[in-house]
Amino acid sequence: MISKKMRALVDNNSVIRMMFEEGQRMAQEFGAENVYDFSIGNPNVPAPEKVKETAIRLLREEDPLKLHGYMNNAGYPEVRAKVAESINKRFGTGFHAGNILMTVGAASGLNCALKAIIDPGDEVIAFAPYFVEYKNYVANYDGTLVAIAPDTETFQPDLNAFEAAITDKTRAVIINSPNNPTGVIYSEETIEKLSEIMSRKGRELNRDIYLISDEPYRELVYTDAVVPYVTKYYPNAIVCYSFSKTLSLPGERIGYLVVPDEAADSEDLMAAAVIANRVIGCVNAPSLFQKVVAECLDEKADIAFYGRNRDRIFNALAEYGFSCIKPEGAFYLFVKSPVPDEKEFVAEAKKEHILLVPGSSFCCSGYVRLSYCVAYETIENSLPGFKRLSEHYGLS
Amino acid sequence: MISKKMRALVDNNSVIRMMFEEGQRMAQEFGAENVYDFSIGNPNVPAPEKVKETAIRLLREEDPLKLHGYMNNAGYPEVRAKVAESINKRFGTGFHAGNILMTVGAASGLNCALKAIIDPGDEVIAFAPYFVEYKNYVANYDGTLVAIAPDTETFQPDLNAFEAAITDKTRAVIINSPNNPTGVIYSEETIEKLSEIMSRKGRELNRDIYLISDEPYRELVYTDAVVPYVTKYYPNAIVCYSFSKTLSLPGERIGYLVVPDEAADSEDLMAAAVIANRVIGCVNAPSLFQKVVAECLDEKADIAFYGRNRDRIFNALAEYGFSCIKPEGAFYLFVKSPVPDEKEFVAEAKKEHILLVPGSSFCCSGYVRLSYCVAYETIENSLPGFKRLSEHYGLS
Repeated sequence: MISKKMRALVDNNSVIRMMFEEGQRMAQEFGAENVYDFSIGNPNVPAPEKVKETAIRLLREEDPLKLHGYMNNAGYPEVRAKVAESINKRFGTGFHAGNILMTVGAASGLNCALKAIIDPGDEVIAFAPYFVEYKNYVANYDGTLVAIAPDTETFQPDLNAFEAAITDKTRAVIINSPNNPTGVIYSEETIEKLSEIMSRKGRELNRDIYLISDEPYRELVYTDAVVPYVTKYYPNAIVCYSFSKTLSLPGERIGYLVVPDEAADSEDLMAAAVIANRVIGCVNAPSLFQKVVAECLDEKADIAFYGRNRDRIFNALAEYGFSCIKPEGAFYLFVKSPVPDEKEFVAEAKKEHILLVPGSSFCCSGYVRLSYCVAYETIENSLPGFKRLSEHYGLS
Repeated sequence: MISKKMRALVDNNSVIRMMFEEGQRMAQEFGAENVYDFSIGNPNVPAPEKVKETAIRLLREEDPLKLHGYMNNAGYPEVRAKVAESINKRFGTGFHAGNILMTVGAASGLNCALKAIIDPGDEVIAFAPYFVEYKNYVANYDGTLVAIAPDTETFQPDLNAFEAAITDKTRAVIINSPNNPTGVIYSEETIEKLSEIMSRKGRELNRDIYLISDEPYRELVYTDAVVPYVTKYYPNAIVCYSFSKTLSLPGERIGYLVVPDEAADSEDLMAAAVIANRVIGCVNAPSLFQKVVAECLDEKADIAFYGRNRDRIFNALAEYGFSCIKPEGAFYLFVKSPVPDEKEFVAEAKKEHILLVPGSSFCCSGYVRLSYCVAYETIENSLPGFKRLSEHYGLS
């Protein structure tokens, strides 16, 4: 007697998560060293030493009632102020504590933002390929996700198709750069054009359209590419950030939401997001880790490690004849399947104990996602399997 | 341009939370020692020393990738197994790891449970006075909360009214014992009768009706009263637990959900709750504190402290002529307002720097809630103010 919405989700459970759990099962059966699990974005670089030191110091020195107690639903005021200051310093913005809502990771941040603005029937636009959960998050509030088909040459947003898709039901647009699953970064020019279209269409339709920028991979960049800070280009922007990848803390569920003063109905919007944080059941972001991240805002896990992985796997797959755009950021490769039905390719790869996620999970079939945030040896040891797959499909 | 649902919530923000924030403001203005903030259930007994020691040891000794990484959405299997074992040992149940879902506090646990089972239009019954957020949680899934009017003599559930309220739209019943805000405990006899009614009506209506037991105060009992474990009385039961009060960790957001094998569609129900945990944006319960609580399942904050507070404030208020049922558990007093409109009493108390929450926030006007999980001195120092209030209203 589960609910109808959940019935559909149970019957069609996240392929990524199922693959992750299958990987754990296979690791038990065949030994972890014989399974090449590229299914999930679970960082393989430890959290910076300062995270540990700070957590231990806080546990030793702080009053436990304050360290583990309730605070305002938006988070500790001093933590919010430090986050605002750090963003201002790095991106030349002008935020204050009141613009920051500490959240249970970016996933909860997105839910707070969407719950704050979506009425049933509202449309939210996303660019395929996109993180599969966006659709579920939008559906939580009875909104509809409208997908813009990918430009598979560049995997940059197709702005003509985007403009045509904006209607009097459009309430928000979600972007994600560096992108999961392609690793591409949206250039300043792209953000400018996207903003111009949104401003113009918003005026035409007399409608506030919010740009939600989901940025868990902001710090994971391997080239000299710059990731534009969207609030500087478009006033109605909401930024969702997570420390999961930058500080290798995905299990701790810690992130924040930025609601600029310039956003439409900014004060109400922030009030709504804070109440949403309470009402969806999060109440507040975990208290110890709020204080930990506030002291680690200049820290980063060892990104060079992922850069080395990227080069190794990208170059090897290219050599074997696989086709793939070279990622500039995040830690994913989006590889063209050698056969039209990529699920067939995923099944074939599994025979080599290589776990991949089908592109249809990202609204982009014909491709597979490979998460290279794994041990370097996992990549090395998987290569003979990829070579055999290449031979199997006659790519090389 | 915030959503209509949030518009209503923003316009009618949680009185409890506003009072909490007002209390912080007043503490700054008048000095914390001159404000008697009884508004929120923020524990005033520090977490047991073992919590700190365990957290520090885990941070020192565990692989940070495992300690802070993703795990299955339901939580670490070994943590789930330990929680099941602890419940079995204490309550004579027969749970296994698969019955436990680790959650971001009980608030998220309730949301996971409700999202799993509620279709739009479904009814969820709760007994007034009840925790104000239940209504918001049910509304998240477009369900309707049906309140059973209180028996203000005993504040035990009115079972005749309850039976009459069960319809072919009833999907769940939420109980909360020890109760927030009254402190009463539902006896074994009450749980037996309630279960009998639910079983009988379920058969009559050919409908699975779930009993959701919200138990954050299970361990906070000051008498020899026993809090029955509901799964032993009714198979379609879901238990929501939080470590917020027992271990004084409300800011860390850690709790769990129990879905027994005996519940209707148990396997689907657990699958749906786990997916709900992911889709509402929690993804998983905070990883470090999952491991901390798993090693502190026999620990308790110093409950005697609250017991002393209870006796002091209850006896003093009784002496001053206030009327109130003596709480057996939790850390709240539910006091009859000397005037019909309790908001007038709340405003009068605020002049004495005493912060109380109006009963209308719990669907029970004419009363106020007082949280006595405060420093003993706060109670002592507030008493002259209560005495003056008593004189103001001619109670003594």
